[in-house]
Amino acid sequence: MSAFLTILGFNSAIPTVNSSPTAQLLEMEERHFLIDCGEGTQVQLRKARAKFSKINHIFISHLHGDHCFGLPGLIASFRLLGRETPLHIYGPKGIQEMLETIFRITETQRGFEVVYHELQGRNSEKIFEDKKVEVFTIPLNHRIYCNGYLFREKPKPRHLDMQEIAKYPEIQVCDYQNLKDGKDFLLSDGYLLKNESLTKKPDRSVSYAFCSDTRYSESIIPIIQDVDVLYHEATFLQELKEMADFTGHSTALEAARIARKANAGKLILGHFSNRYPDRSVFTDEAREIFPNSFLPTALERIEILPK
Amino acid sequence: MSAFLTILGFNSAIPTVNSSPTAQLLEMEERHFLIDCGEGTQVQLRKARAKFSKINHIFISHLHGDHCFGLPGLIASFRLLGRETPLHIYGPKGIQEMLETIFRITETQRGFEVVYHELQGRNSEKIFEDKKVEVFTIPLNHRIYCNGYLFREKPKPRHLDMQEIAKYPEIQVCDYQNLKDGKDFLLSDGYLLKNESLTKKPDRSVSYAFCSDTRYSESIIPIIQDVDVLYHEATFLQELKEMADFTGHSTALEAARIARKANAGKLILGHFSNRYPDRSVFTDEAREIFPNSFLPTALERIEILPK
Repeated sequence: MSAFLTILGFNSAIPTVNSSPTAQLLEMEERHFLIDCGEGTQVQLRKARAKFSKINHIFISHLHGDHCFGLPGLIASFRLLGRETPLHIYGPKGIQEMLETIFRITETQRGFEVVYHELQGRNSEKIFEDKKVEVFTIPLNHRIYCNGYLFREKPKPRHLDMQEIAKYPEIQVCDYQNLKDGKDFLLSDGYLLKNESLTKKPDRSVSYAFCSDTRYSESIIPIIQDVDVLYHEATFLQELKEMADFTGHSTALEAARIARKANAGKLILGHFSNRYPDRSVFTDEAREIFPNSFLPTALERIEILPK
Repeated sequence: MSAFLTILGFNSAIPTVNSSPTAQLLEMEERHFLIDCGEGTQVQLRKARAKFSKINHIFISHLHGDHCFGLPGLIASFRLLGRETPLHIYGPKGIQEMLETIFRITETQRGFEVVYHELQGRNSEKIFEDKKVEVFTIPLNHRIYCNGYLFREKPKPRHLDMQEIAKYPEIQVCDYQNLKDGKDFLLSDGYLLKNESLTKKPDRSVSYAFCSDTRYSESIIPIIQDVDVLYHEATFLQELKEMADFTGHSTALEAARIARKANAGKLILGHFSNRYPDRSVFTDEAREIFPNSFLPTALERIEILPK
């Protein structure tokens, strides 16, 4: 398996001495994706011993300060560290104007290109794709335009069954890639070796969905169906359901309901209101509906495992 | 005495796990002045147990990120904490455009007024004054328009000499304020009691000068002459004097020279380059010229004492 999630911060709104606003580092197939970037994210990245130079893609859910006020400082530090590689930033329309205004006024000369991918769509769309990974938006329902993001590994190469392959000297090393890609092999005598006879199942590809901040919204369920790990905000408990609706947030129970309906493998809760000092109340509530619910642990690097 | 300085951060440029960019909290005559506001300042303020609601005046030296990227988050937190009192921000022209752009795009509705005092002057000017304190700019020489700030307590009330006053039943409690203010007292028989015979010297008023970031600049000396405590940046040692000039910074030796020529009471160094892990090299160099030189200790609340 090759996907790891480090939650850098999961607090709502106001940073405190012991907790940071939303930011996550997702490593998937050796790509390093930064998801949201509240104030102080660059220090959290340092604490997590993340390599700044490997972060080439940043995904911002929405333009509330607790999800983006760490961006200017992080980008200024990239410059000071001598970065030359382009940086791709995905986020709501307006992010470019905000950042470029800041860089102009603070005379932050960059030395590397920032490529903005501004989002305005109301439907889920694929916004990133390379050989191994694809990323989709998850339109959320918050007070301000907001997207979650779904990260999916593409199907992985099949494993070669070397014992079987050894029986056919005609199969050369240069044929291995085709076999890994699932192709059959035609022997010179015209006999077709089916791929399944020469290879074993590939490792399962995993997926991760990040959903913060949002009201309870069943429209996201088809997008995140069968996701291996779901992060879903749970700012309040069900006792404050009205407050959740009013402020555009979810309760722990609602997050659990989404996880169950989407048949997720695991649910991580977050974005907790500071009014609940003991966070176990969130898992207590969520587990009644979805037992595989967890609290995040800041800076812990957890493996995204298949369901 | 009634002035205290808490250095919240004194790192240059890139925040690290153990040190924050420039920010200081000066308490003078019960006013709480925030000076510079690098990323993470609001968390440092919390660590220092500062009362957010008492900060009504913020002084920003210049618009490099390590001196101002903490402002948007701090102001957003003020709002979330229900602030209603106006907030005065003093800083270079451009600070209003930057902050207002951020607040518009992040939909940070404020609930309190932000009063901008944009600075463009090249000469020292008084920018704040009330009954007890006055603040002056200290034009600095950096890569970008930059001011230090001089904070001065006004002369304090004289102490009543109750033993002497008791000799004159004619002097009533309602006369005390005039005596504290230095006025003489005219007895009904026409005899003039000189103020010095009824009162004792007031506590000495103290002053504090904040000078970051700047090249060595003797033009600031008349402005900060006889200051009780001087904070002066010392990004480099003298061995990198050329680098200091090139980047618009000072060496520890230069900071000490300014302190000596200005006849300061005490020098606090700061804004150290990360290339020097052992900061004692800065005081070693400065003390050759100005023995009363010190390293800052983050979050320590130190009293500003008269020379």
